[in-house]
Amino acid sequence: MNLEETLAAIRPVDQGLRAAAKRRMDTKTKPLGSLGALEELAVRMALIQGRLDPSVSRKASFVFAADHGVAEEGVSAFPAAVTPQMVLNFLGGGAAINVLCRHYGIEMRVVDMGVDFDFPPGGALLHKKVRRGTRNFLKEDALTRAEAVSALEGGIAVFEEAFAHKPIDLVGLGDMGIGNTASATAIIAAATGKPVGPLTGRGTGVDDAGLSKKIRVIENALTLRRPAGNDGLDILSKVGGLEIAGIAGCALAAARLGRAVMLDGIISTAAGLVAYLLQPAVKDYLFIGHRSVERGQEAACEILGLAPIVDLGMRLGEGTGAAVAMDLVEAACRIMDEMASFESAGVSEKGA
Amino acid sequence: MNLEETLAAIRPVDQGLRAAAKRRMDTKTKPLGSLGALEELAVRMALIQGRLDPSVSRKASFVFAADHGVAEEGVSAFPAAVTPQMVLNFLGGGAAINVLCRHYGIEMRVVDMGVDFDFPPGGALLHKKVRRGTRNFLKEDALTRAEAVSALEGGIAVFEEAFAHKPIDLVGLGDMGIGNTASATAIIAAATGKPVGPLTGRGTGVDDAGLSKKIRVIENALTLRRPAGNDGLDILSKVGGLEIAGIAGCALAAARLGRAVMLDGIISTAAGLVAYLLQPAVKDYLFIGHRSVERGQEAACEILGLAPIVDLGMRLGEGTGAAVAMDLVEAACRIMDEMASFESAGVSEKGA
Repeated sequence: MNLEETLAAIRPVDQGLRAAAKRRMDTKTKPLGSLGALEELAVRMALIQGRLDPSVSRKASFVFAADHGVAEEGVSAFPAAVTPQMVLNFLGGGAAINVLCRHYGIEMRVVDMGVDFDFPPGGALLHKKVRRGTRNFLKEDALTRAEAVSALEGGIAVFEEAFAHKPIDLVGLGDMGIGNTASATAIIAAATGKPVGPLTGRGTGVDDAGLSKKIRVIENALTLRRPAGNDGLDILSKVGGLEIAGIAGCALAAARLGRAVMLDGIISTAAGLVAYLLQPAVKDYLFIGHRSVERGQEAACEILGLAPIVDLGMRLGEGTGAAVAMDLVEAACRIMDEMASFESAGVSEKGA
Repeated sequence: MNLEETLAAIRPVDQGLRAAAKRRMDTKTKPLGSLGALEELAVRMALIQGRLDPSVSRKASFVFAADHGVAEEGVSAFPAAVTPQMVLNFLGGGAAINVLCRHYGIEMRVVDMGVDFDFPPGGALLHKKVRRGTRNFLKEDALTRAEAVSALEGGIAVFEEAFAHKPIDLVGLGDMGIGNTASATAIIAAATGKPVGPLTGRGTGVDDAGLSKKIRVIENALTLRRPAGNDGLDILSKVGGLEIAGIAGCALAAARLGRAVMLDGIISTAAGLVAYLLQPAVKDYLFIGHRSVERGQEAACEILGLAPIVDLGMRLGEGTGAAVAMDLVEAACRIMDEMASFESAGVSEKGA
């Protein structure tokens, strides 16, 4: 499906089921609300799946990779060559996301959305390259609108193709791209209208001077590019990234097919924000995996009205925080499905 | 082994390995420290296991159950009959801890440390009953010193017997006992010397009047019983619980055998505190699974110098928070063991 059709086909979940789902959780043999965040995860999965016994059989994770022209401004602690090197590391199974996906039983694929490197065709890599990295958004728009749409549709195709092979119940969305916290922060600043300084973090680990430079680059870029705060496509093309577009597209396709989406840290959440600006109903299908150390993520969460599930002080990306949280969503569904009720277990209720 | 021998045989971990373990984590293909709390979990497991490739093959969880005489003061929202009912629910596989243990591949057993009910002998239940519940500590000491030692040794035996069958790398320790947040809070107040009010939570869900009564009962009991703040056995016998003693004993036995222990919420953490007062070196083997909604837990964490791993707003007990965190520890060990290094993956390092 193209972008326009996908956006038009996304339906909000039926909130009418919420009361029955909550009631089902409340009859389980535990004090009311005592499973905390796990209870709401199960209730939200019930709404997404439209049934009181939600379940997660197939979990998939996609790591979207692309380069960023703005990296040439020195906004990252690592050289741009690391993007293709890490793609090869993903394909070799040696990155953190590989280990976590093996641990949690998540099928994982890597998508080349626009890495500045020629990978051999075929193999396990999904080839959706739009161009070899964005343009430097300090000097010109990162992408043309056509390129941004093409990248969004690449992300849509990634989900649709995997889904056609076998339905996916829960999809994790990660990123790899040197320079991409600068792009994500610019997106969040543009969409929220908040000042850049407090939104900007150290990414892979720039020092104080690097952080000041990064803030200046983002501020100047927003002044020069003037993205329209409520126009996801305008923001995406002016200061976005190809992997961010891929993640946004993938989230939209999953929502169109009624499937749950687990965002990761700041990059993935910025992509979720772009998807939300394109089609607010996508929000019903989104979870935010973890609270990133990157400061900008919180502002994006506020607009989305979603709270991160875990807070483990992580800031790696790749979908690593999403992987941890996906397993919690699966556990929460099992609790909803498998726990005995006070009645079935013959346990006395509160005050009885 | 009896209590005295166990306490004497616990050795602190060799902190000399910390630098090498941290270095190994730092060579992995990720920005320094970007896996947050997971990195420290792996480093601590390396110290506990005395090797740079720590691993978790067998995970076990024990749910220690017992009744509390003080429940007759109306300090819980549920009737005392729920303790044996929930034991039967555990044996039937229908409680939250059953679901989570199945999900995480944790072997789970229930221990009757002192439930006020006659379970049939044999079966899957581990029989370590010391007496049918503690005495009401508002009126008299909960246990004699001999009973407290006997319960601690019951917990020691639980671990030793399971371990002899097959080594356990990581043990989760949960609780069931109507009235036991009152006992745990009294233990923490006695050990920390902090005022009871701010330490006391709603347990399974008492209302405002119930909370005031619970605070008054604990305050009066501490005034009457006068447990010595630095004497774990004195605190345990005067205001403790049999399941709390069982957990403390089990933690001590695991530490004596060099194995990692995952505490759960306030009950389990209070038991960890008792174990620590008996033998401070046990601390090197303890993790605290989750931040409980119960307010007293934090004061116990401070004394132990340990921070809870996850914060999911849970307050169920049974070892449910521990189960979630045990899986994270296993994932952290796999990261330490399976991730590629910058060198092995051919990835450029920071600033290279």
